[in-house]
Amino acid sequence: MKRVAVLTSGGDAPGMNACIRAVVRGAAYHGIEVIGIRRGYSGLILGDGIQLTSSTVSNIIQRGGTILKSARSPEFRTVEGRQKAYDYLTNRAVDGLIVIGGNGTFKGALQFVDEFSFPVIGVPGTIDNDLFGTDYTIGYDTAVNTAVEAIDKIRDTADSHERIFLIEVMGRDSGYIAIQSGIAGGAERVLLPETGVSAAELIERLRQDRNGSQSSAILVLAEGEGRGTATVVAEQIKKQSGTELDLRVTTLGHIQRGGVPSACDRILASRLGLGAVEGLLKGKQKVMVGLVNNELVYSGLQETVSRSKPISEELLRLVTILNGSAFADSRG
Amino acid sequence: MKRVAVLTSGGDAPGMNACIRAVVRGAAYHGIEVIGIRRGYSGLILGDGIQLTSSTVSNIIQRGGTILKSARSPEFRTVEGRQKAYDYLTNRAVDGLIVIGGNGTFKGALQFVDEFSFPVIGVPGTIDNDLFGTDYTIGYDTAVNTAVEAIDKIRDTADSHERIFLIEVMGRDSGYIAIQSGIAGGAERVLLPETGVSAAELIERLRQDRNGSQSSAILVLAEGEGRGTATVVAEQIKKQSGTELDLRVTTLGHIQRGGVPSACDRILASRLGLGAVEGLLKGKQKVMVGLVNNELVYSGLQETVSRSKPISEELLRLVTILNGSAFADSRG
Amino acid sequence: MKRVAVLTSGGDAPGMNACIRAVVRGAAYHGIEVIGIRRGYSGLILGDGIQLTSSTVSNIIQRGGTILKSARSPEFRTVEGRQKAYDYLTNRAVDGLIVIGGNGTFKGALQFVDEFSFPVIGVPGTIDNDLFGTDYTIGYDTAVNTAVEAIDKIRDTADSHERIFLIEVMGRDSGYIAIQSGIAGGAERVLLPETGVSAAELIERLRQDRNGSQSSAILVLAEGEGRGTATVVAEQIKKQSGTELDLRVTTLGHIQRGGVPSACDRILASRLGLGAVEGLLKGKQKVMVGLVNNELVYSGLQETVSRSKPISEELLRLVTILNGSAFADSRG
Amino acid sequence: MKRVAVLTSGGDAPGMNACIRAVVRGAAYHGIEVIGIRRGYSGLILGDGIQLTSSTVSNIIQRGGTILKSARSPEFRTVEGRQKAYDYLTNRAVDGLIVIGGNGTFKGALQFVDEFSFPVIGVPGTIDNDLFGTDYTIGYDTAVNTAVEAIDKIRDTADSHERIFLIEVMGRDSGYIAIQSGIAGGAERVLLPETGVSAAELIERLRQDRNGSQSSAILVLAEGEGRGTATVVAEQIKKQSGTELDLRVTTLGHIQRGGVPSACDRILASRLGLGAVEGLLKGKQKVMVGLVNNELVYSGLQETVSRSKPISEELLRLVTILNGSAFADSRG
Repeated sequence: MKRVAVLTSGGDAPGMNACIRAVVRGAAYHGIEVIGIRRGYSGLILGDGIQLTSSTVSNIIQRGGTILKSARSPEFRTVEGRQKAYDYLTNRAVDGLIVIGGNGTFKGALQFVDEFSFPVIGVPGTIDNDLFGTDYTIGYDTAVNTAVEAIDKIRDTADSHERIFLIEVMGRDSGYIAIQSGIAGGAERVLLPETGVSAAELIERLRQDRNGSQSSAILVLAEGEGRGTATVVAEQIKKQSGTELDLRVTTLGHIQRGGVPSACDRILASRLGLGAVEGLLKGKQKVMVGLVNNELVYSGLQETVSRSKPISEELLRLVTILNGSAFADSRG
Repeated sequence: MKRVAVLTSGGDAPGMNACIRAVVRGAAYHGIEVIGIRRGYSGLILGDGIQLTSSTVSNIIQRGGTILKSARSPEFRTVEGRQKAYDYLTNRAVDGLIVIGGNGTFKGALQFVDEFSFPVIGVPGTIDNDLFGTDYTIGYDTAVNTAVEAIDKIRDTADSHERIFLIEVMGRDSGYIAIQSGIAGGAERVLLPETGVSAAELIERLRQDRNGSQSSAILVLAEGEGRGTATVVAEQIKKQSGTELDLRVTTLGHIQRGGVPSACDRILASRLGLGAVEGLLKGKQKVMVGLVNNELVYSGLQETVSRSKPISEELLRLVTILNGSAFADSRG
Repeated sequence: MKRVAVLTSGGDAPGMNACIRAVVRGAAYHGIEVIGIRRGYSGLILGDGIQLTSSTVSNIIQRGGTILKSARSPEFRTVEGRQKAYDYLTNRAVDGLIVIGGNGTFKGALQFVDEFSFPVIGVPGTIDNDLFGTDYTIGYDTAVNTAVEAIDKIRDTADSHERIFLIEVMGRDSGYIAIQSGIAGGAERVLLPETGVSAAELIERLRQDRNGSQSSAILVLAEGEGRGTATVVAEQIKKQSGTELDLRVTTLGHIQRGGVPSACDRILASRLGLGAVEGLLKGKQKVMVGLVNNELVYSGLQETVSRSKPISEELLRLVTILNGSAFADSRG
Repeated sequence: MKRVAVLTSGGDAPGMNACIRAVVRGAAYHGIEVIGIRRGYSGLILGDGIQLTSSTVSNIIQRGGTILKSARSPEFRTVEGRQKAYDYLTNRAVDGLIVIGGNGTFKGALQFVDEFSFPVIGVPGTIDNDLFGTDYTIGYDTAVNTAVEAIDKIRDTADSHERIFLIEVMGRDSGYIAIQSGIAGGAERVLLPETGVSAAELIERLRQDRNGSQSSAILVLAEGEGRGTATVVAEQIKKQSGTELDLRVTTLGHIQRGGVPSACDRILASRLGLGAVEGLLKGKQKVMVGLVNNELVYSGLQETVSRSKPISEELLRLVTILNGSAFADSRG
């Protein structure tokens, strides 16, 4: 193995740069060259690759986003597109490909591997943490901390004005960001795709909380909970409860994707980046490198894209016991 | 002067607690007692006052929100309400009232002073910085820094995906947060109530920026710009530009109100809080204490609520020259 | 079980308050009262206990330090002291004691349990992460992030002035903070108690790094590395290398102990706090509740205080491969 | 005027990059080319200049440090050195020089201007804020906020352990960082070069604070206070007070220099950078561009380096009244 290529694809996540750096320096340690592909699969098709050396990845471990940029590639969904990508890789004498991204990225990779038997290793880079085969994905810890900082700030206002806030966090298919930021932010309720709660129930609980004393409350809503955006859910509650419950809405949005990666994410990204290179060296392919019980583990890409990773029952129970009880001053 | 009362009213702002602390400790220094009124004018009417001492305000200088809480008070808009407030103050032998808040707070104060000739001093506490009679309001610097941190994070994604983001910041009547966070965040455009730009013009400029090279851009929109929310403005642009310009929208919302106050806001709040107490001692009333050219200044409350404070031409020019030019890679 | 007591002891750690909150609310859920003991074992001897309810622990999940305060207690090292503590607990009809702290705290607890057969459960609260029986201790993640933020800042200066910085981080007996902050901060070298490197070797490596191009470097030194403080180590290197290597020294010190706890630490503290209460309920005692492979685990207190937890070889290898290589511009 | 050069010199300060960006883009707006000189005066002598364009300064407004690097230049203190610098500038057809730095930088500039009559404008870039001719220097606001964040963190521990902390902040010749971070951090005492307090007095006040109730305290010491480092001062106090007062020491050190610049510093740097370019265009030279009462002002370089800027009496009074009183719980 003399040359590998690396790309980032899908939504950017804090720590992707730390991972690129680890791939490049890990490869350099083993005497392997690295070509960085710009703009994901789209750049692979266009042949937009640049040589990366240990010094070109200096001083990026602390940067959010991805220096290789990311983009959608409708063309990679076609056989012709994938053929061009394969041709580029073989022309450049690339022996293995490392793709950093999420579920969509890995589905594309899987198809590519199946067609061309090209060695590919996936690295889980997505703030959503919804990938089977790893306890944590790159960017998740930073996104949770960003959400928690936002909740802390909003709590100042919720408490000062004794209001109820509904805060929407990211997570199209999973409630990972919601559950962790909800627990850490001391949110009174967390609304997840994984656990249904009707508007009627919710109103009943909010009313109970308000009994005895006026108080504030923070509800965290996962983007993919099912009933729609926070604005829609708030309208529904306001409508059903009469004017009694006046919810304010905040949608955290894209601030969750960016920012300086946390220590956790930098270390995770470093471990997985090196693990990807050394996985290729050991002949592994069509796998994702992940961290399970603090050990590097290689899972089949097929399994990764098809199996779901449920939220732990213990965490769901924590919210109910620690945050959700009705007590005089419901703050935090 | 033996006893003063202090309250916070209107939207909460980071630094209000630092100001309460300064009022209490400044008063203590002069041998004056302080009664803290809970929930703004509403608490004044209900007689919800608590004694504040130097030690009760320990360890709050760094807290966001307001320990005295804030609330709307429709009753204070009635003569009966204000009469009750006056009765409470005289019953408790209060010699002067310090109100920390924004334009609405001061309008209420003005009516109260005119009817009862009660000594009142206002302290500008609002993130919007839209008050005449002070260069800066308490909470403004923190809000701008919060907005800039958010812009920095979103830029990571804008750059990685080469997208255009429209970020809505607070400022119902003024573009102060927008202009400062726009300059500091390196935003390519700032859309303000103070300066109109048509959708057609905007599209034309965005197209120019895109020419030559694909690139990202950040547009900062002041809440009160005039055309509606960021979502509305983005739809308008997308519609008029065809599918060409695909804007992403983020509304920062309530995270701008909360959070640990910046050093600037803590110092400003400390100076103004002490200034309010010493203003009352010197017989000043029906005034707002502000900071103009780094000096404490007392302006008539009437002037404060009626005059506007325009955004400096120099700052508007800075955005055009430093951020708005069309250059290859438009980042930052 | 009707009543438990909780105390914090030893150096404070971010997340201790989140843990107290979890103990109180977890106990409330099971119908158990909680007495908070102020100032650790010292308060236990003096009988300085206060009742804690769900609402008294509102709004503390995000606060650094410990609302129960901490103190040294030489008296608890005497039989008489421990007898008084026991008398207080029995007088107040306390059925179990939860102690949040580190190695010293647990040694005290062990002696107490052995003498009085009183049910005690320990919770690992220390920034040092040096306790056997848990993968992570409360406060560790926050301390690492604080150290990394500091390293990021110092790198700005190191790079601008092309200097070498030696940064001392906490860890009297272990290099946990050093290794993680070193990897995440992109430090060129990490000096640990666990791995010796002579001054001569270090100088040789620093010289190699400097060859070819002027460059900056960051060295992270664990407090307990063995040769003394950063100032001592820097003097040693300067002396042996002639004037050639001009190291600047920064000792992070107590900023590593405080601050808003990270999301990780809040969640860990919440899980362990509830786990401690439910452990007592299940009859467990003389144990520490920890998190091993993301599962709650109860280990014998004896084992906890006597066994060491070595730093993973994988992490040590990461520093060498990713950070330590000699490359043109050594930044990050 | 067709071409200007810009350099950074002296200690790096957050916002220097924002200033370089403003110089480059401001020049571009006026059709002027910019040469960036690397490593301060040293690079000027060696002819180490690179062309800077609007796109080369993209995405640096938020970065700490200086992309042009900084260095000491003993050679620039010689006539021969300055002659080489002049030759380089004339060979490259440079019409004006902008130097971003502090007092030492300006002294060098002054000598250069006097000898060669070359148009030079200084921009105040130093965290110390000790320059006459400007209310604020670039980097000062960020440094104060960094110091305040550190004080907030240390207060968690001071309060939890009821200890006294002595925190040393930067400021070799002035107490600006100390006074502002002391007020904003709620420090009980601020020890400045500008105001002497004997160890005996200090001990007496600390004892008074301790009377009645055990309590914590934060003392902020300016580096240049006069008695030596924080360690020296603490030893002196411990020695004179017997074992009674057990001060802990933290020296913030280089973390104060780096980091993401605050909104204030980015805006200040942007205004001054543009102001420097437009000053040269208007024929100004041998001046420093500063901000006085929120207006751009050009002061003579000679005045800037020779006059001192005293700390406002109002701020000194604030510390005494708001922080220094003896009250039960002295926290914050």
